[in-house]
Amino acid sequence: MDTPQRSFQRARNPEHKQQRADDLLAAARRLALAEGVHAVTLTQIATLAGVHLSGVRRYFASREEIYLRLAAQGWRDWADALTDALARPTGTAPATPQTVADAFARTLGERPLFCDLLAHVPVSLERGVTPETLRTFKLTALDSVDIVVAAVRGSGAPLDAKAARDLIAVATSLAGSLWQTANPGPGLEQLYTEDPRLAHAIVDFEPRLTHLLRATAQGLARQ
Amino acid sequence: MDTPQRSFQRARNPEHKQQRADDLLAAARRLALAEGVHAVTLTQIATLAGVHLSGVRRYFASREEIYLRLAAQGWRDWADALTDALARPTGTAPATPQTVADAFARTLGERPLFCDLLAHVPVSLERGVTPETLRTFKLTALDSVDIVVAAVRGSGAPLDAKAARDLIAVATSLAGSLWQTANPGPGLEQLYTEDPRLAHAIVDFEPRLTHLLRATAQGLARQ
Repeated sequence: MDTPQRSFQRARNPEHKQQRADDLLAAARRLALAEGVHAVTLTQIATLAGVHLSGVRRYFASREEIYLRLAAQGWRDWADALTDALARPTGTAPATPQTVADAFARTLGERPLFCDLLAHVPVSLERGVTPETLRTFKLTALDSVDIVVAAVRGSGAPLDAKAARDLIAVATSLAGSLWQTANPGPGLEQLYTEDPRLAHAIVDFEPRLTHLLRATAQGLARQ
Repeated sequence: MDTPQRSFQRARNPEHKQQRADDLLAAARRLALAEGVHAVTLTQIATLAGVHLSGVRRYFASREEIYLRLAAQGWRDWADALTDALARPTGTAPATPQTVADAFARTLGERPLFCDLLAHVPVSLERGVTPETLRTFKLTALDSVDIVVAAVRGSGAPLDAKAARDLIAVATSLAGSLWQTANPGPGLEQLYTEDPRLAHAIVDFEPRLTHLLRATAQGLARQ
């Protein structure tokens, strides 16, 4: 992703360039947290970061590349958080499938932008970037999965490496789709509240994710 | 679509109007099956259906409305297929969580367009239509969920109505995300094959869905 061999940079020092790239990522993060990833345009990101739209290309090829970079940061950050959450001090009881599921759901619930991004990654972000950008993202995500697998194994829960991988697949899939359903935007939220027939469609993110992941973790532990 | 002489003529009577709407839905379906929902534009749909782009608005407000209509058809069709798959002839043994999971995975595997649409529904389709169109879609989807719940209960499997609803939530979430991952498009597929570090990223849709849903169904049955 850092491609200094590319030659379309201005006479500008590396720290300045890095600062601009960081500004764009920070702007994309702020806008997505406020409005949802789906609603944010590259123009909005450039404006908030104080970078002219025509200059954004010096740092990122597209809106998709910016959000895929934030998704990679999200994977690393989530893996670190789970490593902390599942750490088992010497002499304490091993984790159970339930406590592992609870840690997954809590750490995902604390990361709304990551959950929002998880739904966008396969449908649009991965499809909108170059193969090299995609390779970098995939390697970061797979590395983060390995870190989470090690954290689950270290917790002492009765989940082997394959089961841990399976739980990660279900957790990230559910977090992506449930977050979208739980955050339909003001117009749709009003519709759900007004029409009693749509009460089933309202989702309380973290309790729902906790419940579904507990069941999945229990099933995986028994296989 | 098979009568090109009708192309670009305005529909005059109600049957013609219905035929035009059906042509647009059929064109949207064909294009999405060939290229993936993410890649299809309203212009492509109009061209294939033989309807002038400016005339599409008489039938559908947007590309999102067309695909949300197909998603509603997909929900009804899937509910019917599962009702058949889980039907229990008199005197036969009750279903198990595994056989229910297998029926879910098989019927989803047979419906690639529905799986593709499931990932697009919350991130873009539901956000791109009017509240009335969304209400109609949601009511169809919730009604289909009720039909699937009844089918699961009728199978004799040890899954109550709440567990059946939970299994539907996990199944449709996983089907949506796994389908995207399993169908990355030719460019990305080549990347995955070339780089051995990305071997983990390759997904075989139906076996993977079957495995994960079996674990979830087992966990739900035991709660």
